[in-house]
Amino acid sequence: MLTRIDHIGIACRDLEATVDFYSRTYGFEVFHTEVNQEQGVREAMLRINGTDDGGASYLQLLEPIREDSTVAKWLAKNGEGVHHIAFGTADVDGEAAAIRDKGVRVLYDEPRRGSMGSRITFLHPKDCHGVLTELVTAATPGDDEGR
Amino acid sequence: MLTRIDHIGIACRDLEATVDFYSRTYGFEVFHTEVNQEQGVREAMLRINGTDDGGASYLQLLEPIREDSTVAKWLAKNGEGVHHIAFGTADVDGEAAAIRDKGVRVLYDEPRRGSMGSRITFLHPKDCHGVLTELVTAATPGDDEGR
Repeated sequence: MLTRIDHIGIACRDLEATVDFYSRTYGFEVFHTEVNQEQGVREAMLRINGTDDGGASYLQLLEPIREDSTVAKWLAKNGEGVHHIAFGTADVDGEAAAIRDKGVRVLYDEPRRGSMGSRITFLHPKDCHGVLTELVTAATPGDDEGR
Repeated sequence: MLTRIDHIGIACRDLEATVDFYSRTYGFEVFHTEVNQEQGVREAMLRINGTDDGGASYLQLLEPIREDSTVAKWLAKNGEGVHHIAFGTADVDGEAAAIRDKGVRVLYDEPRRGSMGSRITFLHPKDCHGVLTELVTAATPGDDEGR
């Protein structure tokens, strides 16, 4: 079961400038930052609200750190904007398997590491009416390995 | 203060087919449907989770009903995908005024009618790092005029 909008992933060219925009304009604060070498991005998570499944919803601001990262290629084609959306679940493995069985392409064989120690996978946007869609299981509460 | 991700607006060519995709793939259910003549769209709201400000987060699926609607033009240029994101606030008038004072273009002089009797305005995507951004104040609890 997918129980929340976990985050909206936004691709940007300059992470500090974009964080500054969201902070100045809306008062949103940085909850967490990290570099994800595998995904080829630097990122900032802005926590917007808590959710009734015990999680939270974030904006995830993403700046590519390599020209060959998928976010860099996406930015070159589309310019800055919403890159993906992510739904939270307690069981990313089970959800990904069930969704694959329905004929939707799941991009990873096994979930990979996402923000804040989460486990993530992606669904092919062409199978999702144009929306690159991520599934996320947050790290165990209290596991702050990724922070 | 913006207190939640209110919704993610997703432009689609066939509302019934897209609702069916979200229902079959993820189990999301339609919470509300309406036609917004002013915006030139038919829409379905899928409620994903409750939020800790007493509101909720939705997916808003949007199909244009006129060739000259902004969503129709956006679809012709971009294809199906995420059209906008929306933040919820108790005071759309005050937030819009404060954000305008910071130099961000607000697209309406006064908030207009949004989904489920809400009051909405939009911020210019070029002033928001490429993200068309909506501000929403939900209808008074118990006011089901829009449903």
